[in-house]
Amino acid sequence: MAVAAQLFRGATRGATRAACGSPALALALAAAAGRRALGSAPPGLAAGQGWRRAALAAAGSLGGLGLGLWRRQQAAMAASEKDEDEKEEEELRQRFMAPPVSGLRELRRRRRELRSRMELLIMETQGEVCRALAALDPGASFAVDTWERKEGGGGISCVLQDGEVFEKAGVNVSVVFGLLSEEAARQMRSRGKSLKAKDGKLPFCAMGVSSVIHPKNPHVPTMHFNYRYFEIEEPDGTIQWWFGGGTDLTPTYLNEEDAVHFHKTLKEACDKHDLKLYPKYKKWCDDYFYIKHRGERRGIGGIFFDDVDSPSKEEVFQFVKSCAKAVVPCYIPIVKRHCHDSFTPEEKLWQQLRRGRYVEFNLLYDRGTKFGLLTPGSRIESILMSLPLTARWEYMHTPPESSKEAEILEVLRNPKDWVH
Amino acid sequence: MAVAAQLFRGATRGATRAACGSPALALALAAAAGRRALGSAPPGLAAGQGWRRAALAAAGSLGGLGLGLWRRQQAAMAASEKDEDEKEEEELRQRFMAPPVSGLRELRRRRRELRSRMELLIMETQGEVCRALAALDPGASFAVDTWERKEGGGGISCVLQDGEVFEKAGVNVSVVFGLLSEEAARQMRSRGKSLKAKDGKLPFCAMGVSSVIHPKNPHVPTMHFNYRYFEIEEPDGTIQWWFGGGTDLTPTYLNEEDAVHFHKTLKEACDKHDLKLYPKYKKWCDDYFYIKHRGERRGIGGIFFDDVDSPSKEEVFQFVKSCAKAVVPCYIPIVKRHCHDSFTPEEKLWQQLRRGRYVEFNLLYDRGTKFGLLTPGSRIESILMSLPLTARWEYMHTPPESSKEAEILEVLRNPKDWVH
Repeated sequence: MAVAAQLFRGATRGATRAACGSPALALALAAAAGRRALGSAPPGLAAGQGWRRAALAAAGSLGGLGLGLWRRQQAAMAASEKDEDEKEEEELRQRFMAPPVSGLRELRRRRRELRSRMELLIMETQGEVCRALAALDPGASFAVDTWERKEGGGGISCVLQDGEVFEKAGVNVSVVFGLLSEEAARQMRSRGKSLKAKDGKLPFCAMGVSSVIHPKNPHVPTMHFNYRYFEIEEPDGTIQWWFGGGTDLTPTYLNEEDAVHFHKTLKEACDKHDLKLYPKYKKWCDDYFYIKHRGERRGIGGIFFDDVDSPSKEEVFQFVKSCAKAVVPCYIPIVKRHCHDSFTPEEKLWQQLRRGRYVEFNLLYDRGTKFGLLTPGSRIESILMSLPLTARWEYMHTPPESSKEAEILEVLRNPKDWVH
Repeated sequence: MAVAAQLFRGATRGATRAACGSPALALALAAAAGRRALGSAPPGLAAGQGWRRAALAAAGSLGGLGLGLWRRQQAAMAASEKDEDEKEEEELRQRFMAPPVSGLRELRRRRRELRSRMELLIMETQGEVCRALAALDPGASFAVDTWERKEGGGGISCVLQDGEVFEKAGVNVSVVFGLLSEEAARQMRSRGKSLKAKDGKLPFCAMGVSSVIHPKNPHVPTMHFNYRYFEIEEPDGTIQWWFGGGTDLTPTYLNEEDAVHFHKTLKEACDKHDLKLYPKYKKWCDDYFYIKHRGERRGIGGIFFDDVDSPSKEEVFQFVKSCAKAVVPCYIPIVKRHCHDSFTPEEKLWQQLRRGRYVEFNLLYDRGTKFGLLTPGSRIESILMSLPLTARWEYMHTPPESSKEAEILEVLRNPKDWVH
């Protein structure tokens, strides 16, 4: 479940500096290098100016005001703007788990750019989910680790382990960039689109939020979500961009009411954008999380999509935002409903066997995990955060017919439609 | 650790019938199909004759004896031979865990052929190891499953689970055959030698014994071994053959005495054949069982070799036989020494974390497991028998410096020479 972006063999710092050619990447690079990033401004803005200040400056010069009045207005506005800036910065600080990789000030400065909006969204999602989970497990708390990737970028890993309610809950953000080989770039796109590189290398940036929540109680399902954004720049300056993501549920036992709630919430998020999205991404999810050698899906699905680059960047972003905002309402009510359910040792054992299947899927099939682990420079602990605290494998374990264990297996073998 | 042979997409039964072109394969095929296999005899032997009888017949005709005397001698010898045959068959039956895939009578009939000798060796090894383990865990017993592969061949899986001494102990035999694609045949050989096929398919046969023993007590190490033999027939009738195998140890805690005993026993087995073998295969083992993303070996090694086809079939077989015979003396004394050691919950927890690493290696790197699971028609339960009963993953677990846990990690990161 690691963000695929963690995976790519990066370039040296010197090489990535010139990477995407755009200021935002240079800024993020500088931030990753531990320096205060200033960078150059977007077209129409002077370097070092916030977006409000630049707009005011433009209005002033257009309005043809006298110089003295203009200066006084400027000073007053600058003071009020500073207050607003500080207030907003403080608000964001409270919503995030740690300072963003690209720096809060820079994200605010470049807030119109999609890359900044996506980074703010993944940071907000991380904060929202961590706070919602922590509220249900008051004795436990999230360990927050910020890390840098020497080839460019970094991330924030939040992990709660061995709590009362959650066995292991991880919510990762990563924002990475650098240079990709043509082959690696091709592999990055699930449809394998070819990309042309000048010297065999392509500047890229990738960011995402990724999470797996393994609860203790076998009546509370495991949940996974991941939303990510990629850009690759071709030598002629063309930027290939795409989004990927999904949210899916892995119960130990089937609870139809939970399944319907989960899928319905996702469907509502999708339907706001296009009625075709939910059925398409529901099927993609069932297909993607297939444990081929077992003939089973990892769970009861949800939505999954990859390599989505239409109808437009803005529209896909808005869709991704709706999905990210649906994570808490999808899952938290299910946790609340069951986290105090009683369970037997046999039910715990069946949960452990299902955890074994989760490990099999993640280590054998999941694209992000596989690429991540096999690529030097990736942060192993953040990638393997997706593995459960404990898992079990019994030789030839087969649940009795008509048992609750057989019931969930049936659904994993033959996925159902939960909402129509 | 599955025998790589289980992996290969086989042909239909009709196609495999003509597979290797040699009688032994047709026999094994017939046996796998559940029929009594008779087959044709090797050159110089009449069909249906045992090798002793054929030798006597030849001696008789050469000696120029009178017909009456010859007939009486023949009858007496046949009776005594029958007794001997039955006695030997009974002995073998007691030593094996189940009837061999190719049928006991047929293996005895074709006992000069290397394929038969190897099948007898892997059957004997399975029996020896199972008996030695069961003797140490009197409350538990091995479940014995025989299975057939519809594309050709089959196997015998012996698994002891949740005993007093062993958490999970599996010893598998498999003998499979069929047709391989050129690509699959190439992948089968670690050196990637190219092979020419007539219609894109190559007849092959593969057999091996494969085992992983996970004890309960964290002071008893996990042990793995695997000895295997492959044949591929090219369209001009050339048979490419090779052996592979190895035995390696994965302790939770380092015990130098055990490490030295284990490696010394393996070295003695190797040294009987060539003094160069142990150092070469010891290094190969350290290289093969490398968990790249962790920068650690799976264990403290042993020996590992693959794709060995020189100096001669007979000499490599004798070497493999010595290795297989060394499994019990390598490992059993270590189990006996520590299976009643006391241990703390913290030591058990560290064992579980190391089991997690074992799972990572087997699912991410092991060639046999990976090919096996991703190939239709393989017996999943026999392949995944290598996974421990239980495993654990903790985020950012780092043992304190100078602890016993750090001591073993150091050896896994920097392999040592245990014998000189």
